[in-house]
Amino acid sequence: MRDTERRLAEIPGLVRYENVPRDELMRRVAAATRETYSREEVYGRFCTLETHIDCPPEDVFTYLADVYSHEEFTYSVREVEPVADRPGLFTGWDTVGEDTRIYMRVDARPEALTVDYHSAWDQGDDLWMVYLFRIVPAEVVLKRPGSVLLWTNCHHPYYAENPYPELAPPSRTLWVGDLWSQFAPGHQVELDNLRAILEHRHRNGIPIVAGRTEAAAR
Amino acid sequence: MRDTERRLAEIPGLVRYENVPRDELMRRVAAATRETYSREEVYGRFCTLETHIDCPPEDVFTYLADVYSHEEFTYSVREVEPVADRPGLFTGWDTVGEDTRIYMRVDARPEALTVDYHSAWDQGDDLWMVYLFRIVPAEVVLKRPGSVLLWTNCHHPYYAENPYPELAPPSRTLWVGDLWSQFAPGHQVELDNLRAILEHRHRNGIPIVAGRTEAAAR
Repeated sequence: MRDTERRLAEIPGLVRYENVPRDELMRRVAAATRETYSREEVYGRFCTLETHIDCPPEDVFTYLADVYSHEEFTYSVREVEPVADRPGLFTGWDTVGEDTRIYMRVDARPEALTVDYHSAWDQGDDLWMVYLFRIVPAEVVLKRPGSVLLWTNCHHPYYAENPYPELAPPSRTLWVGDLWSQFAPGHQVELDNLRAILEHRHRNGIPIVAGRTEAAAR
Repeated sequence: MRDTERRLAEIPGLVRYENVPRDELMRRVAAATRETYSREEVYGRFCTLETHIDCPPEDVFTYLADVYSHEEFTYSVREVEPVADRPGLFTGWDTVGEDTRIYMRVDARPEALTVDYHSAWDQGDDLWMVYLFRIVPAEVVLKRPGSVLLWTNCHHPYYAENPYPELAPPSRTLWVGDLWSQFAPGHQVELDNLRAILEHRHRNGIPIVAGRTEAAAR
């Protein structure tokens, strides 16, 4: 441990057993434990939702990895179709924006059960709105069947200002970033949809991806 | 879309554009947007911390994937060493518990930049305390260099009650789960340590894993 101490000595501000006694650490942490948090503190820079879903991890992954599932669990993304000559890129309508095209690409990693949606309004070249999903076997982390789903969005600077205003439909008065402060309850609506659909299909033995699949649509 | 509607009609409670008008959805979400949240609401079932670290994603991954990094960024885990005849299993002392052995296994997936610590106090056969880390290139989600680190713990039922009380050292009065309500500020201390170490080494061109490595220790 001597080597470790020497290496770390030059880094200011570390809080470790060697320099902050246990009782002092306990006091500090207890003092920092709050009864309430402001929305800005919890959801200002990042918006993470977590839930348990009574559906096996592989099925939750399969469902999220299928781009057409958007048409089911989202409130507003519809008529998803591949973009010609752009492998992996899809487009649809986002009915939250007026006359708004949404573009998206799914980056799904089965070995780690991560599924990321890279998307944007109005154009498909700079997919800056990123929905980070991670599925964890609930048996491992909660000792119960099913899945834990983690869903994080990060406050990309484009939420504050549309980087391509010239591409916005003239009729549209809303920018997606205007809704950032409402992402937690807004995404909760879609997370509730997702859970309801997956639990219904798992409980009743209905194929998880019930409609057309990416493969079928190609 | 007709097929989709038919498939979803039998699932009660879905909130979709087709059954909840846009203005009504906007009203509901605005009404559900809160100024404050209780600790139980935010950290009761899951404890997620997020931060930006000014250090490349691959380096953050390498650091977290090295089990000996525990000895640096954690407040209390020290003297980590491999357990004989148990490949991948390590043990150390957790100085937050009195005379407490901690056991751990690292599950690191470079292709998805996830690093999970599966650990437990007192025994190494049932590693139920799981620290879920995910590293995301900040360029992708925040349009800036460095990494976003997501860190989630889930409220496993063993936090509420020690499943193996007979293995606890007689001198110990604390159970790790007694601290669950303080995990957010407690983990924040270690996240601040982690960020300070990684940013210091990245800024100064110091090797990210400065001490012995897993490979060297074998």
